[in-house]
Amino acid sequence: MRVSGRAQRTIWREGSDGDVGIIDQTLLPHAFETLRLTTVVQAAHAIRSMQVRGAPLIGVMAAYGMALAMRERSDDRALQLSAQLLKAARPTAVNLAWAVDRAVRALASLADHLRRDAAYALADAMAEEDVAACRALGEHGARLIAEQHARHPDRAVNVLTHCNAGWLATVDWGTALAPVFLAFERGIPLHVWADETRPRSQGYLTAWELQQAGVSHTLVVDNAGGHLMQHGHVDLCIVGTDRTTARGDVCNKIGTYLKALAAKDNGVPFYAAVPTSSIDWTLDDGVAEIPIEERDEREVHEMRGWTADGRLETVRVTPVGVRSVNHGFDVTPARLMSGLITERGVCAASRDGLAGLFPELACAT
Amino acid sequence: MRVSGRAQRTIWREGSDGDVGIIDQTLLPHAFETLRLTTVVQAAHAIRSMQVRGAPLIGVMAAYGMALAMRERSDDRALQLSAQLLKAARPTAVNLAWAVDRAVRALASLADHLRRDAAYALADAMAEEDVAACRALGEHGARLIAEQHARHPDRAVNVLTHCNAGWLATVDWGTALAPVFLAFERGIPLHVWADETRPRSQGYLTAWELQQAGVSHTLVVDNAGGHLMQHGHVDLCIVGTDRTTARGDVCNKIGTYLKALAAKDNGVPFYAAVPTSSIDWTLDDGVAEIPIEERDEREVHEMRGWTADGRLETVRVTPVGVRSVNHGFDVTPARLMSGLITERGVCAASRDGLAGLFPELACAT
Repeated sequence: MRVSGRAQRTIWREGSDGDVGIIDQTLLPHAFETLRLTTVVQAAHAIRSMQVRGAPLIGVMAAYGMALAMRERSDDRALQLSAQLLKAARPTAVNLAWAVDRAVRALASLADHLRRDAAYALADAMAEEDVAACRALGEHGARLIAEQHARHPDRAVNVLTHCNAGWLATVDWGTALAPVFLAFERGIPLHVWADETRPRSQGYLTAWELQQAGVSHTLVVDNAGGHLMQHGHVDLCIVGTDRTTARGDVCNKIGTYLKALAAKDNGVPFYAAVPTSSIDWTLDDGVAEIPIEERDEREVHEMRGWTADGRLETVRVTPVGVRSVNHGFDVTPARLMSGLITERGVCAASRDGLAGLFPELACAT
Repeated sequence: MRVSGRAQRTIWREGSDGDVGIIDQTLLPHAFETLRLTTVVQAAHAIRSMQVRGAPLIGVMAAYGMALAMRERSDDRALQLSAQLLKAARPTAVNLAWAVDRAVRALASLADHLRRDAAYALADAMAEEDVAACRALGEHGARLIAEQHARHPDRAVNVLTHCNAGWLATVDWGTALAPVFLAFERGIPLHVWADETRPRSQGYLTAWELQQAGVSHTLVVDNAGGHLMQHGHVDLCIVGTDRTTARGDVCNKIGTYLKALAAKDNGVPFYAAVPTSSIDWTLDDGVAEIPIEERDEREVHEMRGWTADGRLETVRVTPVGVRSVNHGFDVTPARLMSGLITERGVCAASRDGLAGLFPELACAT
């Protein structure tokens, strides 16, 4: 995608020595700055601190993290320790463990001196795979938007999304927003309701992406979606996912479940954009089985923004002394999902639906 | 209730000339300051700017606003203009129109020179009525909390509330929080989940009230409630209301509907605390009939808090140039309500339920 008109990805090789460039997403949308990572510790920190965020991007970051590790030391002990370090950075995203395990599998059988180049080649391949998968997913999702447009050709299609599953959450294109970007490119008139997504307000990233792309959008607080759906202002919801179970329960940013309930109550189609890497074939009942990351409560207490005189300040917005808890995700049961958008097509949120598209993966477990 | 240990109401007569004292709630929870109002224009401003907020308190503020008006000029024209000015300050709260109409009815038939004293007497009476009504409502609601305690005597009862319907939203005691304060006084162990309630974050006021009262509580973002209910961490939801229809549809702060959906989906009882003055017997279908106030989008864009070096700053948290809409309320259909807590008892959220408790009012329309 583009930033101020220039082509940009979220992660890239910086220079010829294998350093890794990323956008420091903790500064967005207030400032656009890039970082150059040189060690696996920096890669793990980038994941933990959410300098990179979004399940697909976290996976690719982890793959480059393994490459940075192998550049430093490539013995078995370094391989195992680096894998543990990266996996521990965020507990909920299945992509992270998936990417690290994939790297370990590919590298463990190689002689030490071959591991560095192999790790970079794998990370590069995973980045390209992610771009291709998001693009394919976007094509399938764009058809859902086109269907809504055909139903109401006289007005813009209203899409609601929660959190940020745009290109910033992937290497490029995004997951939930890929259908939006592709439909927009094809001239389908649309408007996006971007949920703020407290506490970290990733909706600001969604709004920023849509602003950069020129797509009509309105930022709304997380409380607004139910009212908008009650009054017919939403045609379609598309959200991302951090982990989806084999039966189609969707774990995504906290608050997704509330929007799915409102969509069900108002007959609004509700889809998750599901990259293959985020499907956890070992799990069934998402509410019971998916561990939900509990993050630092400071994310609830503190917000950052511009003062009237142009300074970027962090302020404590909550009453001094008041405590919070900060669960990062919730699980939307499959029964509330209209379907899952994958890179292979759209399917029902069910074991049969997923197995129909991914027979080789569903059967392997 | 008490602030720093001192008895405090939200509105009172200041001095002997009929000036009116209020807490400037726009500064809470960051600072506790009071204001002295001397004119009806100041009273209308206090309502519009949310220096006073909460349906019951708005009603009493309007009654004192009429008294301030009559102190200035007490002819028919002043009576009508002041009534219009006050009613226009907030369009959704039915208490406002109710209080103003009640004052106009009481004063219009009096000779001009009698209106000032009558207006003050009426406002004083309405303030005392509100205190008594909240206390009675609290007694009925406290029984619901006691029932939950009887079911789980080994642990605290977990109550979730949205927005602030505490004593700050009334003259004293509150509506949704009155049951909490009374149950706490009686030694029932409880813990309150306070929804943040973006965009104006009135949950901070709820947390501040609970902090002042010594009631265990946790502030959570608006996205969290569904997850908490899915995992059994909520025994009971109690919210306030700005307008309730004759069939029991509950208009309350935006986002209430989402929590009611989650409560229904998880078998958690969901009640609204409904002062008589907030029942609109002329309305039936809340979603279709209640006009929803659209407030300034700056409430979404700007937040206030303390910097690390102790300055109170307002910052723009959203991306520069991004637009928002700011609907203040939503409507929870009666079918999602477990019941309504009124000063006369708890009833079903239905025409029959309300008519059973308020036959003289239900029949009058």
